[in-house]
Amino acid sequence: MEKIIYNVTLADGIRYDLLLRNGQFAAIAKTGKLENSSTAEHMDGTGCLLLPPLVDAHAHLDKTMLGMKWFHNNLGPLLSERIANERESRRKVGLDSCIQAGKLIERSISMGTLAMRSHVDIDTANGLSCLEGVLEARERYRDCFYTELVAFPQSGLVSRPGTIELMEEALRLGADLVGGIDPAAVDRDPKGSIGAIFSLAEHFDKGVDIHLHEPGELGAFTMELIADHTIASGLQGRVTLSHAFCLGSLEERRANALTELLSDAGIQITTGGQAYVPAVPSVKQLLNAGVNVCGGNDNVRDMWSPYGTGDMIERAQLIAMRNGFRRDEDLELALKICTENGAKLLQLEGYGISEDNSADFLLVRADNIAECVAAGPRERQVFKAGVLIAENGKYLS
Amino acid sequence: MEKIIYNVTLADGIRYDLLLRNGQFAAIAKTGKLENSSTAEHMDGTGCLLLPPLVDAHAHLDKTMLGMKWFHNNLGPLLSERIANERESRRKVGLDSCIQAGKLIERSISMGTLAMRSHVDIDTANGLSCLEGVLEARERYRDCFYTELVAFPQSGLVSRPGTIELMEEALRLGADLVGGIDPAAVDRDPKGSIGAIFSLAEHFDKGVDIHLHEPGELGAFTMELIADHTIASGLQGRVTLSHAFCLGSLEERRANALTELLSDAGIQITTGGQAYVPAVPSVKQLLNAGVNVCGGNDNVRDMWSPYGTGDMIERAQLIAMRNGFRRDEDLELALKICTENGAKLLQLEGYGISEDNSADFLLVRADNIAECVAAGPRERQVFKAGVLIAENGKYLS
Repeated sequence: MEKIIYNVTLADGIRYDLLLRNGQFAAIAKTGKLENSSTAEHMDGTGCLLLPPLVDAHAHLDKTMLGMKWFHNNLGPLLSERIANERESRRKVGLDSCIQAGKLIERSISMGTLAMRSHVDIDTANGLSCLEGVLEARERYRDCFYTELVAFPQSGLVSRPGTIELMEEALRLGADLVGGIDPAAVDRDPKGSIGAIFSLAEHFDKGVDIHLHEPGELGAFTMELIADHTIASGLQGRVTLSHAFCLGSLEERRANALTELLSDAGIQITTGGQAYVPAVPSVKQLLNAGVNVCGGNDNVRDMWSPYGTGDMIERAQLIAMRNGFRRDEDLELALKICTENGAKLLQLEGYGISEDNSADFLLVRADNIAECVAAGPRERQVFKAGVLIAENGKYLS
Repeated sequence: MEKIIYNVTLADGIRYDLLLRNGQFAAIAKTGKLENSSTAEHMDGTGCLLLPPLVDAHAHLDKTMLGMKWFHNNLGPLLSERIANERESRRKVGLDSCIQAGKLIERSISMGTLAMRSHVDIDTANGLSCLEGVLEARERYRDCFYTELVAFPQSGLVSRPGTIELMEEALRLGADLVGGIDPAAVDRDPKGSIGAIFSLAEHFDKGVDIHLHEPGELGAFTMELIADHTIASGLQGRVTLSHAFCLGSLEERRANALTELLSDAGIQITTGGQAYVPAVPSVKQLLNAGVNVCGGNDNVRDMWSPYGTGDMIERAQLIAMRNGFRRDEDLELALKICTENGAKLLQLEGYGISEDNSADFLLVRADNIAECVAAGPRERQVFKAGVLIAENGKYLS
């Protein structure tokens, strides 16, 4: 089971030939330097750029309306309106979380994303139905797509009696992490909400991933509480904050102090480079302080947001643009956030383009990584364990 | 010379048949209601959405490096560095403004943009060479692409002796408007710079379009000076401010007062929804006050910015995202900014989808305008005076 893919470009801009054996990279050598293996299948890489798989560190598999009738959005501006609308409309619009999760997984694979952390709504109106559907979809694509699931109390945790019990059931059923949402702004009780999240995490020995949209000093206050709880419960390295918009809206000195705190507590950040907030967290500031930052698509054409295609190269571009990146090396950093850093968050084994790792990768027609990120969406070929599993935007089931 | 295109969707979501005659819309009727015309050529619109031509109200035809070797950007963060780099590097990298303008015009046409306002650099290092090249390209595509040119003192007007004389030559040579750049931050003499711009405009009886990147109160001060000069010189309705970032960074009451001033002076705004600034001007605030707002792609893969494809639907999406638009009606507004409002700025005659207007339009595969904007780039067919001039991303020369 050997395959040689010759003439591909790696991140350093140099042409290489790859020998794949038993689903792994057996050898990676500059073009022309690979030992001849006449029995192997040969494939011409035609100079394409070879990238490691994209990783979507923040998704909502149970929300997407991909392929469904267009949702005519005429909602008001409040977060609470969007939360209530979705909770109450799921059944009305016929949103089947298993079918929809499958669509987004296939779309992701077709774009070269092979691993994802997805939040899944847990609420008293829909119970565990979203999670049950997503768990089924996860199982179906297990061979080529790694999915980590966060039990997400979208409608509130302590503010909606009955939700904590559902969260417990969700964790028993197969959710991998405890989620949370704006402990102050949405759940209306920062100490109570964070306490409940960490108590679930400790009891079930799970990591934590909290949506934090809270702006300015409110977000900063919540962030401090979360860092304290992280250290107190010994969960350093297992807590993630998603969005963390407050870091973008505080003055630099204050943001720096919070960043140090995140670093001390081993808290990781996911960002989507959202365009609708005044500023997103500075990726460089976080990375320089040793905080891991990962990219996520967040909403993909759902009742929250009409935007989103599921493409993590497009997401890398948006994160780069919002961080004011223009230089080649900065665009490379934006892609790293959507590949390696996500793999680190998900603790993927055998990830990356080096010998003995799993031969998971994508081939795109681009001059170099900077050009790939700056130009955005384009066709690509996707390989899992050396096998072509998607091309021309289609998952080859 | 009759053609019937049946089964297209207009903005109201209803299916129509169109009769085209002598390059104009002769009749637009709900599907099945058109009088039979057996001699006409028939074409099935297959339910595609029909849009008026896109208008790019702020471009730089002489800067793009589309189709050239990738420009490895390792420039520092300052505006002045980017200005100096480009001025000095144009010849070194072999940037031929006629060839490059042609490429961006063809790219624009292929995306359904049929009218554009482009700034063209005028400076003491490159003289009028950029303008000469762009004028030649404009002439070549005159039949299907309308181009308005702004003589743009990118490197400074009053701060670089010899530039005013070049601007005069540029206006005699065929430039349609007088440009300017950050009278305070770049030209270092707000009163002098604005005075020189308006004196050129009055002398040559031309409109004005000034790049205004200046933030906060500095930008507000410059904006006030420009409004005063506009009224004093009787140029109401003929002055445009491009970017106007300060409107996004001031508190609401101050931004409202400036917006009123813009409205009184008949000043129009172009915006690109740039992702790298904390906030862009609020499109709705401006439109509600009666200020015309138009969209522009600005830089397309040049020495300034690695981003940009030339697609004004993608631009509408970015403007929508940065304005926090999620509702269908808001997404429709974003498209209007990139179509009708631009046509108003350029005073295009016979523009729009109604009888007796020129049969210029595009067909895209989309459920509705909101979906088209939210999903972004996609294939389209482009028609000029009833004739197919581009499809599948290719200009049919």
